[in-house]
Amino acid sequence: HLNPKFSCRQLFFLKLVLHFSNKVSWSGKVLVFPVDGSHWVNMNLMIQGLHNRGHEVTVVRTDSSWYVKETAPHYTSLTIALPEAIAIEKEDFFVTFLMKMLAIKKAGSSPVAFLSFYWEMLGALSKIHQQASMVGVQMLENKTLMQKLRETKYDVVLIDPGLPVGVLVAHELGVPTVYNVRWITSGEGHFVVAPSPTSYVPTSGVALPDKMTFWQRLQNTLHYGLNTCIDKFVVAPVYDRLVEKYFGSDISFYHMLQGADIWLMRVDFVFEFPRPTMPNIVYIGGFQCKPSSPLPPELEDFVQSSGDHGFILMSLGTLVKALPKEITSKIAAAFAQLPQKVIWRHAGEKPDNLGNNTLLLKWLPQNDLLGHPKIKAFVAHGGTNGIYESIYHGVPIVGVPLLFDQPENVLRLEVRGAAKVLDVTHITTESFLGTVKEVVRNPFYRNNMKRLSSLHRDKPMHPLDTALFWIEFVMRHKGAAHLRTESYKMPWYSYYSVDVVSFLIAVVLLSMWIFFAVVRFLCCRIIRKRKPKQE
Amino acid sequence: HLNPKFSCRQLFFLKLVLHFSNKVSWSGKVLVFPVDGSHWVNMNLMIQGLHNRGHEVTVVRTDSSWYVKETAPHYTSLTIALPEAIAIEKEDFFVTFLMKMLAIKKAGSSPVAFLSFYWEMLGALSKIHQQASMVGVQMLENKTLMQKLRETKYDVVLIDPGLPVGVLVAHELGVPTVYNVRWITSGEGHFVVAPSPTSYVPTSGVALPDKMTFWQRLQNTLHYGLNTCIDKFVVAPVYDRLVEKYFGSDISFYHMLQGADIWLMRVDFVFEFPRPTMPNIVYIGGFQCKPSSPLPPELEDFVQSSGDHGFILMSLGTLVKALPKEITSKIAAAFAQLPQKVIWRHAGEKPDNLGNNTLLLKWLPQNDLLGHPKIKAFVAHGGTNGIYESIYHGVPIVGVPLLFDQPENVLRLEVRGAAKVLDVTHITTESFLGTVKEVVRNPFYRNNMKRLSSLHRDKPMHPLDTALFWIEFVMRHKGAAHLRTESYKMPWYSYYSVDVVSFLIAVVLLSMWIFFAVVRFLCCRIIRKRKPKQE
Repeated sequence: HLNPKFSCRQLFFLKLVLHFSNKVSWSGKVLVFPVDGSHWVNMNLMIQGLHNRGHEVTVVRTDSSWYVKETAPHYTSLTIALPEAIAIEKEDFFVTFLMKMLAIKKAGSSPVAFLSFYWEMLGALSKIHQQASMVGVQMLENKTLMQKLRETKYDVVLIDPGLPVGVLVAHELGVPTVYNVRWITSGEGHFVVAPSPTSYVPTSGVALPDKMTFWQRLQNTLHYGLNTCIDKFVVAPVYDRLVEKYFGSDISFYHMLQGADIWLMRVDFVFEFPRPTMPNIVYIGGFQCKPSSPLPPELEDFVQSSGDHGFILMSLGTLVKALPKEITSKIAAAFAQLPQKVIWRHAGEKPDNLGNNTLLLKWLPQNDLLGHPKIKAFVAHGGTNGIYESIYHGVPIVGVPLLFDQPENVLRLEVRGAAKVLDVTHITTESFLGTVKEVVRNPFYRNNMKRLSSLHRDKPMHPLDTALFWIEFVMRHKGAAHLRTESYKMPWYSYYSVDVVSFLIAVVLLSMWIFFAVVRFLCCRIIRKRKPKQE
Repeated sequence: HLNPKFSCRQLFFLKLVLHFSNKVSWSGKVLVFPVDGSHWVNMNLMIQGLHNRGHEVTVVRTDSSWYVKETAPHYTSLTIALPEAIAIEKEDFFVTFLMKMLAIKKAGSSPVAFLSFYWEMLGALSKIHQQASMVGVQMLENKTLMQKLRETKYDVVLIDPGLPVGVLVAHELGVPTVYNVRWITSGEGHFVVAPSPTSYVPTSGVALPDKMTFWQRLQNTLHYGLNTCIDKFVVAPVYDRLVEKYFGSDISFYHMLQGADIWLMRVDFVFEFPRPTMPNIVYIGGFQCKPSSPLPPELEDFVQSSGDHGFILMSLGTLVKALPKEITSKIAAAFAQLPQKVIWRHAGEKPDNLGNNTLLLKWLPQNDLLGHPKIKAFVAHGGTNGIYESIYHGVPIVGVPLLFDQPENVLRLEVRGAAKVLDVTHITTESFLGTVKEVVRNPFYRNNMKRLSSLHRDKPMHPLDTALFWIEFVMRHKGAAHLRTESYKMPWYSYYSVDVVSFLIAVVLLSMWIFFAVVRFLCCRIIRKRKPKQE
C-alpha cells in the first residue's frame, strides 16, 4: 500500500494529518473500567478522545457511582447493581478520614493512636477493594452478560487499575488490556512493573526525595517492605479469591495485573523523579492540560481589579470540600494581609475574618484562572490534576498537602524549587502569610516553574494523542506482547538470580574445600614421608 | 506566544507541520564524534538530517579515517592527526580475525586455542581504544584548538560511544551530550545505564534468548561478570588515565560515560527483547529505513526473469568482503539447485561451481532489492543495518552470523520465527540448501517477519524525526537533566542497598541476641530462686 512517490517521512506526516483531523478509517470497541472521583476526570477525557476518533466506548459503572453518569453523549454505560454492598459515602468518608488524620498529627506522634489509625486505614482499603471486587463477582456470575460481552468482540479493555477488577473481566474475555494508571492497588504504578531500587526511587506513601541520606534510604526500604506486605496480605487476597474461583490456581492475581499490554502512565519527568521504566510504559502526564479560555466577565473584573499585584488562587481539590474552621480562619487572616486579590474555592463554613480582597467560590474555572496572566501563585493540596495544570501554565505552588499522595506530589515540586510546602496541622497565620509572600515575591519559584513548564510542553505530540495512538495500536495489533517482558512469571528466586548465585557460591566453596583437602592430604603425606627419614 | 484561537492539539499539529517541512527557526551548532565503518552509515544519516534542518555540523575524524570523508556538503570536518598511532588496516584486520575465529571453531573447542584467541581479541580491543583515546589526547593537549572549540559555543556534542573519546572533550567544553548508540565500550548500551537483571536480560557477546533455563542463566551471569571485568580492567583504564590527567581524580571515566543527557538507542523492540529502560533512552531502531526505489534496468530484468519463483538476496555486510573458498563453493552449489534466482554480494574469489541462476555483484542496492515484491529471503550475516532493512520490508532471513553481535542479532529474529540460523563453520551444501528452502517455502517465516514489519512501522513519528527532535530538545534546553537519574554517582554499596540491608540484619541479630540474653538471664534467675526452695 506504499505509494513510491511519497517518502517514508512524508507518509508519517500524512498519517499525522489524518490523526489530528480526528478521522479514523475504522471503528474499534472499547470496554472501560474507570475509578470514581478525580480519576474519572482523567478517564473521561480519554473516553471523549476515543469517541471523537469514532470508537464505540462502553463504561462499566455501579448503581452507586458518584461521578460516572449513566448516560453521556460519548459513551454507553453498563451499570452493575451491587445488591449487598454498602455504598461508601465518599465525601463524608474522606472528610472524616482527614479530620482523624489531622487530630492524630496535631496531638503529636502517639504511636498507639497512629497505629490504630493505620489499622483503620487498612480496614478501609480492604473495604474499598472488597466493594470493587463485588463488581467482578456480579459480572463473572452473570453468564448472559458475559456472553453478550463476548459477542460484542471488544478490541481492548481500558482499565484504571487503582481498583483492578477489570483485569479479571478482560482475562475472562481474552481481550488485550491498556491501563490508564498512576496508582495501582496500594502503590504507584511503576512498582508493579518496573525495577525500583529503593536506594534512589522513593516508594509510595513516604515523602522522600531521590537523593537520600542513609537514614532516608533505610526509611524508604522499610516503607517499601510495608507496601509489599499491604499488597500481599490486604489487597491481593481480595482478588486472589476470585481468581482462584474463576480461573483456577495456575495463575495469581498479581501476574494477571502485571500482564497489561500498555501502561499509559499519568506521569511526566518534570514532575516525577527519573527512575527505571519499561518498554510498555507510555508517559502521558499532563494529558488533561489545555490552554486557558477567557474568564466569565465578573471573574475577569475581579481579577483585573488586582492591578499589578495580581491574584492568588486557592483550591483543595474534589475530595475535601472543607478544612476545620480553626485552620480556615488562620488562612483567611493571612490572605487579608496580602496586597494581592485571592480567589478561594471553598464549600464549608465561611470564615468570619475574611478580607475584602478574598473571593470565596464553590466552583471555579481552575484551568482558565491558572492560565491568566495576572496569577501569581496557586495554593493547592497537591492532587496531580491541579499540579499538572500548574506546571502547564508555569504557576508556582504553595503546597498544603492533606492526604494520600499529596505530600509526595508537592515534595517533588519543592525539590525542584517550584513550590513551598506547609504542614497543615501546624499552620499559623504568620507561617502561611510568610510562605505565600515568599512564593509570590521571590522570582526563584516562578522561574523554576516556568522552566518545568517549557520542558513539559516541549513534546513531539500532545500526551492525549500519544495515549490515543497507543490504545489504537493495541486494537490494531491485538496487543503489544513484543513490548512486555514476561519475567514476572518467573519464580522470585529465579528472577533475583538467587538460585544461580547460590549455585556459584556452592561451587566456589566446594572447590575451596576440595583444594584445601587435597593440600592437607599432600602435606600430611609429605610430613609422614619426612618423619621416618628424620627418625 | 499562545494564540487562544488555536487549541493545544492544533498547536502541536502546527509544530509538526513545521517539523516535517524541514524548517527550523534557529540554527544550532553540533560537534560529532562518530565511529568508523558501518556505524558511520547511521551517523551520517543523522548528520544529513541535522543539516537539512539548518544546523551547522562539525565532524571529528582522524587522518586515517576509513569511511568518514574530509569534505562533504552537509558537514565540515575537523581532522585530528595521529602522529604516533599505527593506523589499523581495518579490512585486513577483520578478515584475518574472522579466519582465525573460524579455524578455532572448526577445530573443535580446544580450550587453549580459544583462550589464546580470546586473549588476542582483548589485546585488539585495548589497541582500538588506545588509538581512539589518542584523539582525545591530541585534542585536549591542543590549547588553541580547544579555545577555538570553546568559542564556537557548540549546543550539543553528538557521540557514538562505541569509542567514547568525545565524552571527554564534551566534558572539557561543558556542552550537553547526546549518544547515537547501540554498543558502548565493550557491551550493549543498556548495560551501562539501565538495570539489567541477568535472569531475563541476555548479556552482550552471548547468543541467549530472554527465556532461559537454569544453565543458560548461569552462563549469562558468568558472561555478565566477564563483560564487567573487560570494561573495568581493559577499556576503562585507557580513558581513566586521561580523565585523571585532565580532570583530576574526583570523577571516573565511567561516571562521565553514564552522564549523557539523551541516549538515542538504535534498538526497536520488534528486534530486541523487552527489558528495563530509562527515561532518557529514546528508541530509534530502524531510523535508517526507507521505502525502496526502482532497480537499475539490468537488475530489474534479472529479477523479473525469476518469474513466480522470485529471488534470494545474499550479503555479508561491509566488514567481511569474502568467506574462504571452501565455504563459498558449498553455498554456490546449494544456490545452483534452487529454482529461485540469486543475487550475491561477493568481492572475493569467484566460486567455480556457480549456477546459472546466481549473479555475483561487488555492490548492490540492498534496500531496493529488499523492498522488491519478488524477493523471497535474505541470506545475511546479521549486522543491524541489514536486519532493520529486512524487518522494514518484511523479508525473512537465513542467518549466517560471523562476528561480534551478529549471532545475538539473528538469534533475536530466530526466537520470533522470522529467521533460521546456520553455523558457518559447519555449513554443508545440504544444510544450506535445506535451510534456504525452508525459509522460502514455509509461510511461517514470511508471516512472522510481516507481523514484525507492521509492528515496527506503526509509530507516531519516523524514528529519524524522533532522533532529530531529541537532539534539538537538548539544544533548546541545554541538556535534559530532568530525565537522567544521578544514581550512578552513588557508591555501589549504597546503590545496591548493601549498607541498609547490612544495618537491618545487624539490628535484627542484635535484637535477637538481646532477647535471648534477657530470656536466659531471667531463666537463670528463676531457676536459682527455685533451687533454694527445693533445697
